[in-house]
Amino acid sequence: METIIVDTLGGDNPPVEIIQGGIKAAQSYNVKIVFSGDRRLIERQLEGVDGNFSIIHASQAITMDDSPVEAVRHKRESSLVLGVEALREGKADAFVSPANTGAIMAVSLLKLGRIFGIDRPGIATALPALTGRAVLIIDIGANVNCTPQNLKQFAVMGTVYCREILGVKNPKVGLLNIGAERGKGNKLAQGAFSLLEKLENFYGNIESHRILWGDVDVVVCDGFVGNVLLKALEGGSLATLDLLHKTIQRSFWGKIGSFLLRSSLRGFKQKISSSNWGGAPLLGVRDIVIIAHGNSDARAIKNAIGVALSSIKHGLVEKIERGIKKEIP
Amino acid sequence: METIIVDTLGGDNPPVEIIQGGIKAAQSYNVKIVFSGDRRLIERQLEGVDGNFSIIHASQAITMDDSPVEAVRHKRESSLVLGVEALREGKADAFVSPANTGAIMAVSLLKLGRIFGIDRPGIATALPALTGRAVLIIDIGANVNCTPQNLKQFAVMGTVYCREILGVKNPKVGLLNIGAERGKGNKLAQGAFSLLEKLENFYGNIESHRILWGDVDVVVCDGFVGNVLLKALEGGSLATLDLLHKTIQRSFWGKIGSFLLRSSLRGFKQKISSSNWGGAPLLGVRDIVIIAHGNSDARAIKNAIGVALSSIKHGLVEKIERGIKKEIP
Repeated sequence: METIIVDTLGGDNPPVEIIQGGIKAAQSYNVKIVFSGDRRLIERQLEGVDGNFSIIHASQAITMDDSPVEAVRHKRESSLVLGVEALREGKADAFVSPANTGAIMAVSLLKLGRIFGIDRPGIATALPALTGRAVLIIDIGANVNCTPQNLKQFAVMGTVYCREILGVKNPKVGLLNIGAERGKGNKLAQGAFSLLEKLENFYGNIESHRILWGDVDVVVCDGFVGNVLLKALEGGSLATLDLLHKTIQRSFWGKIGSFLLRSSLRGFKQKISSSNWGGAPLLGVRDIVIIAHGNSDARAIKNAIGVALSSIKHGLVEKIERGIKKEIP
Repeated sequence: METIIVDTLGGDNPPVEIIQGGIKAAQSYNVKIVFSGDRRLIERQLEGVDGNFSIIHASQAITMDDSPVEAVRHKRESSLVLGVEALREGKADAFVSPANTGAIMAVSLLKLGRIFGIDRPGIATALPALTGRAVLIIDIGANVNCTPQNLKQFAVMGTVYCREILGVKNPKVGLLNIGAERGKGNKLAQGAFSLLEKLENFYGNIESHRILWGDVDVVVCDGFVGNVLLKALEGGSLATLDLLHKTIQRSFWGKIGSFLLRSSLRGFKQKISSSNWGGAPLLGVRDIVIIAHGNSDARAIKNAIGVALSSIKHGLVEKIERGIKKEIP
């Protein structure tokens, strides 16, 4: 049975919500959950609950404001540091946390190390494309200053993840850029194009308005641009729903129409809800680390554990190692 | 009466569409339109039409694939080059073109020069925020590699434009970033923050999902990130409408609901249509240049001419000169 450590502190929601996510996962999948956090609180939540659980007691929590360095140096008794240490010691197969991204990255790099051939790990996230398939974006915030070489490594790791975990047979990789033609973009994009075109599955440049149409399966970019991209796609979508709602409420027939639409709209909102899309893997470290959204509810945590489980079963780390050896000898 | 040159070649649409936009503008505003392009074609369109028109004949067109250097060096008889030359010679007060952005930028820089104190001009575009007001984004693609100093100059120019042309009393400037706190972001964002915080109207960092909520009036970023941002907001919005449409069509009540909603939806689509939002000014050159979207229809061209007219009447170039002298002595 696989064992997954869940960091119950450091998210925006109270630990109880995270613990409920772990319980749901233990009941849905055949998996053992190790909660890192406040022992008493966790024990209270687990009372009378069936499932395979254990606890790593932690007396400190990483907050959203803690700098990565702070987290590593001064919070050695935090649920994040103790959880990652237990992972390194082989006490579990994966680690899931809704904490501060920078802190997870720093602690993972320090305690787990990088896969041979990877200079910087990247955070990947899957978005729902209109085709019904997922589009993987890497990096969405781990590395704000990148080299073309970093982007090539993201491309290889993203390809492996997309094929092995998302089940896409021949994933196409696109370079996020501001025009379709070769030669477009800033220095980083121009440099990355020359490296990426050596990959068999390189599609070429992809512009941000095409991403949700599913032209490519993997989108490669630096973490600054990737983070702006992700939040802009989300912002554009939410603003549209908001404006639509206001426009509709202004007319009589609009109100009746939206009343008739309410169940369709509910289905739609569920579809675009980030809690359906699970966690974002930190690719390139020598173990499986899944970053859940800071405001993850129980369902999002359960889904992030599902992503972790799938990554374990497919031997993700070994497959990335093999992919990197092949493409970046 | 103000005179505005309209480049009829180089857009995605046929020249006839652009010319119709110029005719509409001449009929709506008290303005003289000078068309640059194919004389015969323009004359045919103007036959029997009332209004104050003239023509600059051009035998070449800049295409979307022409590199900026190509445009400047080898297409001296193009509607773009001849139009900008006529502007420089004082034959008109502004120039409007739906051609290739890089080419417009290169020709304008070469022929018109920069405002004193501006290292690189920037392209600004106004988006509709949910508040009903506009949010100005600068730069959306003129400069893909920027310095913190460039971003400060964009902030000053954007503030002047927002106040004078968009009529916002005390425009707030936000720095596009991937977190709200000081110290977030890549080297460029960190460097720009230190310069921008000296401006009276600096709000701080703004994340991309907040932009359409109107937290700030001016968003400052480099042209690579700005272009990704703009297209992602658009893509997120359009994908949402598409997915919503498909979701609705799947249920019986959804179909009836959407039938009742059709006029509200039409109003909504008009609201977010880019043709309502006119052209994007190239700020920082020593004359008024308005870049219309490549796929501008007649209405979009008319609106871009409206933006040009308003810029002339408010003495935009002089006001930017004054703003720059004050902030960047």
